[in-house]
Amino acid sequence: MNGSRAYTAQDSAMAQLQARRLQIHTVHESVVFLRSDSPVCRSEGLGTQVRVAVRFGAREIIATLYQVDGDALGLDEAGLSETAWAQLGIHDGDTVSVRHPQPLDSHSALRRRIFGHRLDDTSLGMVIGDIAAGRYSDVHIGSFLTACTTLPLDLGETRGLTRAMVGTGTRLTWPDSMVLDKHCVGGLPGNRTTPLVVAIVAAHGLTIPKTSSRAITSPAGTADTMETLAPVDLPIERIRKVVELEGGCVVWGGAMQLSPADDIMIRVQRTLDLENDGQLVASVLSKKIAAGATHVVVDIPVGPTAKVRSPAAAEALEQLMEAVARDVGVRLVTLRTDGREPVGRGIGPALEARDLLAVFRNQVDAPSDLRERACRLAGILLEMGGRASGHGGQALALQTLIDGRAWKKFVAICEAQGGMREPGVAPLQQPLCAAEAGQICGVDNRRLARLAKLAGAPQNHVAGVDMHTRCGDVVEQGQPLCTIHAASRGELEYARAFAEANPDIIEVEPL
Amino acid sequence: MNGSRAYTAQDSAMAQLQARRLQIHTVHESVVFLRSDSPVCRSEGLGTQVRVAVRFGAREIIATLYQVDGDALGLDEAGLSETAWAQLGIHDGDTVSVRHPQPLDSHSALRRRIFGHRLDDTSLGMVIGDIAAGRYSDVHIGSFLTACTTLPLDLGETRGLTRAMVGTGTRLTWPDSMVLDKHCVGGLPGNRTTPLVVAIVAAHGLTIPKTSSRAITSPAGTADTMETLAPVDLPIERIRKVVELEGGCVVWGGAMQLSPADDIMIRVQRTLDLENDGQLVASVLSKKIAAGATHVVVDIPVGPTAKVRSPAAAEALEQLMEAVARDVGVRLVTLRTDGREPVGRGIGPALEARDLLAVFRNQVDAPSDLRERACRLAGILLEMGGRASGHGGQALALQTLIDGRAWKKFVAICEAQGGMREPGVAPLQQPLCAAEAGQICGVDNRRLARLAKLAGAPQNHVAGVDMHTRCGDVVEQGQPLCTIHAASRGELEYARAFAEANPDIIEVEPL
Repeated sequence: MNGSRAYTAQDSAMAQLQARRLQIHTVHESVVFLRSDSPVCRSEGLGTQVRVAVRFGAREIIATLYQVDGDALGLDEAGLSETAWAQLGIHDGDTVSVRHPQPLDSHSALRRRIFGHRLDDTSLGMVIGDIAAGRYSDVHIGSFLTACTTLPLDLGETRGLTRAMVGTGTRLTWPDSMVLDKHCVGGLPGNRTTPLVVAIVAAHGLTIPKTSSRAITSPAGTADTMETLAPVDLPIERIRKVVELEGGCVVWGGAMQLSPADDIMIRVQRTLDLENDGQLVASVLSKKIAAGATHVVVDIPVGPTAKVRSPAAAEALEQLMEAVARDVGVRLVTLRTDGREPVGRGIGPALEARDLLAVFRNQVDAPSDLRERACRLAGILLEMGGRASGHGGQALALQTLIDGRAWKKFVAICEAQGGMREPGVAPLQQPLCAAEAGQICGVDNRRLARLAKLAGAPQNHVAGVDMHTRCGDVVEQGQPLCTIHAASRGELEYARAFAEANPDIIEVEPL
Repeated sequence: MNGSRAYTAQDSAMAQLQARRLQIHTVHESVVFLRSDSPVCRSEGLGTQVRVAVRFGAREIIATLYQVDGDALGLDEAGLSETAWAQLGIHDGDTVSVRHPQPLDSHSALRRRIFGHRLDDTSLGMVIGDIAAGRYSDVHIGSFLTACTTLPLDLGETRGLTRAMVGTGTRLTWPDSMVLDKHCVGGLPGNRTTPLVVAIVAAHGLTIPKTSSRAITSPAGTADTMETLAPVDLPIERIRKVVELEGGCVVWGGAMQLSPADDIMIRVQRTLDLENDGQLVASVLSKKIAAGATHVVVDIPVGPTAKVRSPAAAEALEQLMEAVARDVGVRLVTLRTDGREPVGRGIGPALEARDLLAVFRNQVDAPSDLRERACRLAGILLEMGGRASGHGGQALALQTLIDGRAWKKFVAICEAQGGMREPGVAPLQQPLCAAEAGQICGVDNRRLARLAKLAGAPQNHVAGVDMHTRCGDVVEQGQPLCTIHAASRGELEYARAFAEANPDIIEVEPL
């Protein structure tokens, strides 16, 4: 079909709008606000909450459009969220254009997956590339995650997803050909073995450049806990120096863009409260590969209120993780651990750091479960690294703690990261006591984590919950089961109210 | 566990915030803006883009929170989107409270469905009830739709979903025990048989109170086309009078809340560009049951660029629709029709209305395909309604058109709805001509619909595309294939540019 005139129709869509920074925060989705009666909305036929392309010079982002009436915004203005502002790299007074986005090729792959067809590496690469570039709305990301849960990712897809995720991010390299790493699939409060494992392994001259995350929905991430002992937000050049000097580090990995698509998808996973094995394996392995790891030990706590709830679920996860690790050339050992109750005593950054120091310093009251878990994990790495033969790793790890080598190495790492410091103590403390005598028969890890968060963890480093009892302990009526630590009266009250409304977080069975 | 003081922690969450109307439009999701440094964000630990409960007096809604910095909003202010404003029923100066929402019980049902478990009627009722009440974010709705596509809804679930949807909306009742209705699953431009079917059926004394939709993504909905001929936005009392008087009507059903959950889900379906048979069946049947229909004919156009693309897909859809209709007590007949190319000549409200009038008035140039389809559909209803025996319905319908009874009835219905009027004609017209001689071998319904929309349909009633050729026609080089109708120069240019970039919308095969 031929029209009789030249191609001029996109002119009006290219009309320039004054960019206005609205200081609106989104997690990662870019948002743009336009007047509903603006020429661009009318000429482009843009409705509210559609996805649009916003262009500034050569940069273009995909954003969600909200239409607005009234005088808050001019007809020739485009209001931008912080993410959009940063992605476009603009300044007040710059002008942008807004128009219909090109349809994403990867949306047809997404659609095929929704309808139950398997995706090959190329298609997964397109989907993950678009997600990493911020071109997917949360609705589309959630749809992808759902489709990959309802029809679980198979081995081939999990491998493809892992590779695609690695392909979108930075990839670190290290001088040493063997680079060790450690991961925990999570869900268990207080399971803060990483600083111990790193110190033990590095004390034996092995390389373990550990990047950790901050808490997203938990009361403390490893980076939050470590931050009460030393700086963790280091530029990559500085991290390299720490590792060069000490063999190991415990730093925050969030700014390194190791697997940006994963960082985005994890937020939507939390919103939907779903995680599938394939996604979890791809998430873990992609981050380890991107961090340059060659040998990895993975802690899989199993318990009714942990992330992995049954031995059968653990078995399936282990098999998939080990198979994909083989495929992508990573030596990986999984360790199934007890996930029925918290590890150590403290839950919250400073309280967990206190437990770590007690173990490092061989204090008599140091939590033995935390020490044992750390030694089991470090032991596997020592064996993989050729420092212990057969099953001698755990004993060597324990010896390294007892004789002070691990503590010395940890202090050196902290100093190299910017200086060691002591964790603080909460000004407000409130014990929660047994309503009746009996035996502790269970702990709800999820609600316990919520209690610690209501008390202010991890934003307030000193906040959290300190456990005084463990499963199997016999308690008297009125005996303290745990103590809430808080930095403000309001947060203490919040946590206490939650504890009152949930008297069975620590379950006491009358004898 | 016992705390030692009274329960006071929710006090700070109940702090009152000044409501501010921000005049921001969303499709249906409520949005609230708070300062990120506001006491409520800090004390409640609310992050950006989380879901929150917003309360005004006894009313509470669930909204998506966006955090904002700067002076646009005060620390004690809550900015609300239009949907939130309307749902809460507040006025400037009123105060609201914002806090963590109660977890939705139906989210655990959603989660089960995502993990591949079937949902019973109770669970589906909870999900649909929460969606209808606006308690689901688009991400959760999209996840539900995806799960129901990746593992398709089975017969039992489709029935449960249908019942759940009916349960959330208004349900109309009519004096007559037999109430006829007609539906088209859509996807075919110009397939505007409804006014003809209603007039023919009502002319025989049957009851057919037809509620129609406006276009969501198509160039014209039946309500848009009918509006060029008579008012369609009538209150329910007025609709009752029209039906009482004339037996039939063709009105807009959008304000009647016949299936509010469906209205919400359809928007997210369009975003994700997915529809599954179960959802489609539940959508159609729930709206028909809510509208009080007892006997329904469903037009299923089948063609490579129609919504239903193959005979096998049509077969599956028909079987599911007929089975669920039986279960819920609706007599339903499906009719598979040719969906390869548009029906009639006009695409767009006024152009389609012109075709309708031509058929009603027995003009010699009236599009015969439109007349034939309307008579087939009306014929089935006349047979169901006992006005024609065996297969005599179609002939009786044609007779009713030819002898003017249908036209007389249609005029009467238009007058009862508020007065008949003539559709307008576009001031700007631009033919698109064959680039070379040949035979028309195919029409892309989807891109043709897009062309009509770029020309301004349905917002501009007179805009759209007028077809001059049909599949199989032989054309000369330069012969007009169709004509773009537009109300503004800009829209005409948009459409023409799209046509130039897509020269194969009407495919001409050289002979």
